Amino acid sequence: MGEVAGAKGVACRGILVGSAARNTWLSGDRDIDIFLAVPEDGDITAALEIAREIAPEHEERYAEHAYVHARIDGFDVDLVPCYDVSDPSRIKSAVDRTPFHSRYVSERIKGMEDDVLLLKQFMKGVGVYGSDLRTGGFSGYLAELLVIHYGSFLRVLEGASSWRPGTRIDLAQGADISGPLVVIDPVDPNRNVAAALTLDRMFQFVAAARCFLNSPDISFFFPPEVQRMHPDEIRAEIARRGTEFVLLEISAPDMVDDVLYPQMRKAEAAVRGLLEREGFQVLRSDVDLVRGGDVRARLLLELSIWELPSVRRHTGPPVWEAEHASRFVRGNPSPLSGPYIDDGRLVVEIPRRYRRAVDLLKGEIHRISLGKHLSSGRVRALSTREIIEMMDEDLAEFLTAYLTKKVRIC
Amino acid sequence: MGEVAGAKGVACRGILVGSAARNTWLSGDRDIDIFLAVPEDGDITAALEIAREIAPEHEERYAEHAYVHARIDGFDVDLVPCYDVSDPSRIKSAVDRTPFHSRYVSERIKGMEDDVLLLKQFMKGVGVYGSDLRTGGFSGYLAELLVIHYGSFLRVLEGASSWRPGTRIDLAQGADISGPLVVIDPVDPNRNVAAALTLDRMFQFVAAARCFLNSPDISFFFPPEVQRMHPDEIRAEIARRGTEFVLLEISAPDMVDDVLYPQMRKAEAAVRGLLEREGFQVLRSDVDLVRGGDVRARLLLELSIWELPSVRRHTGPPVWEAEHASRFVRGNPSPLSGPYIDDGRLVVEIPRRYRRAVDLLKGEIHRISLGKHLSSGRVRALSTREIIEMMDEDLAEFLTAYLTKKVRIC
Repeated sequence: MGEVAGAKGVACRGILVGSAARNTWLSGDRDIDIFLAVPEDGDITAALEIAREIAPEHEERYAEHAYVHARIDGFDVDLVPCYDVSDPSRIKSAVDRTPFHSRYVSERIKGMEDDVLLLKQFMKGVGVYGSDLRTGGFSGYLAELLVIHYGSFLRVLEGASSWRPGTRIDLAQGADISGPLVVIDPVDPNRNVAAALTLDRMFQFVAAARCFLNSPDISFFFPPEVQRMHPDEIRAEIARRGTEFVLLEISAPDMVDDVLYPQMRKAEAAVRGLLEREGFQVLRSDVDLVRGGDVRARLLLELSIWELPSVRRHTGPPVWEAEHASRFVRGNPSPLSGPYIDDGRLVVEIPRRYRRAVDLLKGEIHRISLGKHLSSGRVRALSTREIIEMMDEDLAEFLTAYLTKKVRIC
Repeated sequence: MGEVAGAKGVACRGILVGSAARNTWLSGDRDIDIFLAVPEDGDITAALEIAREIAPEHEERYAEHAYVHARIDGFDVDLVPCYDVSDPSRIKSAVDRTPFHSRYVSERIKGMEDDVLLLKQFMKGVGVYGSDLRTGGFSGYLAELLVIHYGSFLRVLEGASSWRPGTRIDLAQGADISGPLVVIDPVDPNRNVAAALTLDRMFQFVAAARCFLNSPDISFFFPPEVQRMHPDEIRAEIARRGTEFVLLEISAPDMVDDVLYPQMRKAEAAVRGLLEREGFQVLRSDVDLVRGGDVRARLLLELSIWELPSVRRHTGPPVWEAEHASRFVRGNPSPLSGPYIDDGRLVVEIPRRYRRAVDLLKGEIHRISLGKHLSSGRVRALSTREIIEMMDEDLAEFLTAYLTKKVRIC
């Protein structure tokens, strides 16, 4: 693309980046990324001004810097101001790197565009496409680099079949970075292109790759849609499992997934920790974000132990630590049993404060840290019965995904 | 004592050993030990013959060798054949060592007999006296050595107050032995006199010693008797704890405590292991032996988790171990959920075989090793309700001790 001049006569260079720029665009994608580059010593706000003029009906969004998002002819167009640096080592913001990625791929991908398309659709079909923090999967750029490195779609799958944690792919002499998968960015050797990829998504891809090589099938690319279960089916399935569910619903501010999801995962870990410290046991848990109207973070906990006896064991210091031992005995003046000695340590058996997991959550959730944007939110704790009574479509979808959780492996 | 001649003219030396020999005999004790020593190259069966003649109405018992037990004038008299060896390094059997112990103590205990009596009665009162394998406490000889080492009853308690695990008392240059407490036998430097003392009994003594020094009281020596609880009280106490009890009753052969108790402890550990491997949780457990009629070993288990959901998590190999992963997936063809990946490993959620602890015990107890003499025994598993319904005096006593378990500590 070429020069774009704004109303005030300031000029910047427009660059089409992303898959649209290099024929590796999946059908159905509606995203077009256009970068508006000002000179290295220029004024980036001028580029934002130009973006606003290009798309008068827009929405302003924020990543590292402000950018403009607009719907134009049915496409989602991002107009992203950036600096036109001469060398990737001189970038001022993460977006300045993108034009270099675009150029690196364009120069090497010729003839392998279809392989990139196959790989991206395969990743989408098996649920590992997207480097957002919700998915924790593969970015489009990472898929392109893998095709460049291995040479074709099938060779990527073959290569992935023998990946192990810590597998490293050096497209350039790179820094000493660790991670489940390390793919050195040829444009910036201090950066791991696969930094957002989680261990579990990585091996979800590996497992699917092995399956596909073993018995290829169109359904890897286009899996059958999961039918949302009817509330009655959900109730029956929960009864069959014989477990107890608790749903925590936390009101959240209207922020992007990449801000909220990591906090929801932290909140999930904190809640599991609280439950497990008190002797309850979580079989599995998951998080979901409900938008539309109020934003609500949902933490679903499936408990294998949700009710405990009145009495609990409380272990103290070793008897030979005389001071601590005395303090422990004075601190527990009328236990149900004890103090007695077990393996050299004092033990008392005392009443438990919360016998039911849901009561513990109702009573103590405000004492644990749920993350910056969730801690101030209103929290509701729903029991299995309440979950089933209040089932809305979002919740039915979330529970369907939870109950039918399964990765492709053979 | 002097020469004793048998009917056949064979002579052996009679030696009064034990507390009766050195004025460290607790009132109420009814045990008199007389050793019958034959020369080092003599015939020990001759001494047994003499023992039989001395006490025509006797019972023959067995330790390392046969000996004679008789009730004479209300005393329990043991007549124990041994070899009269010149030096403790030449002993042929453990009993040959006893006359040397007796001599070592007699030569050093003068003037401290009352201290030994106080210490033994204190140990008895706080429940740590007896080096049998049921008690795992202090032997009389060990109490005597402690008084010889520290110089008085009170100094033993003061010394014990700062004992730590591995404390070592060398009354002679001794071998490199480890244990909770190591007291080298001055008569045999390769032997730890405190070998039978468990860590917990050791520190039960330490705790009581500190308490006594802090606030001495006659009740340390003569604690109030524990009143056996009425079955109704036991039922109420169990209800208050909110736990579930299981009693395993295993028929056992009529063997001495020192043979059966270690096996009962092993069986207890094996049963706890079985329960915990399957996801149940034991709060506490204990063992008891019922004699009189059939001998029965009783294992009491108090469960904090005794019922679990139908579904359980089953974790498999890491996905990168392709062979193992495939085998795992084929081995779990229709899980309730999964397979999915958690922290790189495959997980399936499958039905649980035993949802109740008591059913697991009824179904699987024959598969675990309960120890040589218990494995062939008939086993009954009783639930809380059955325990309360079938309560006999022995069981009420056992449960009383269990429910009121408490050591002296301050």
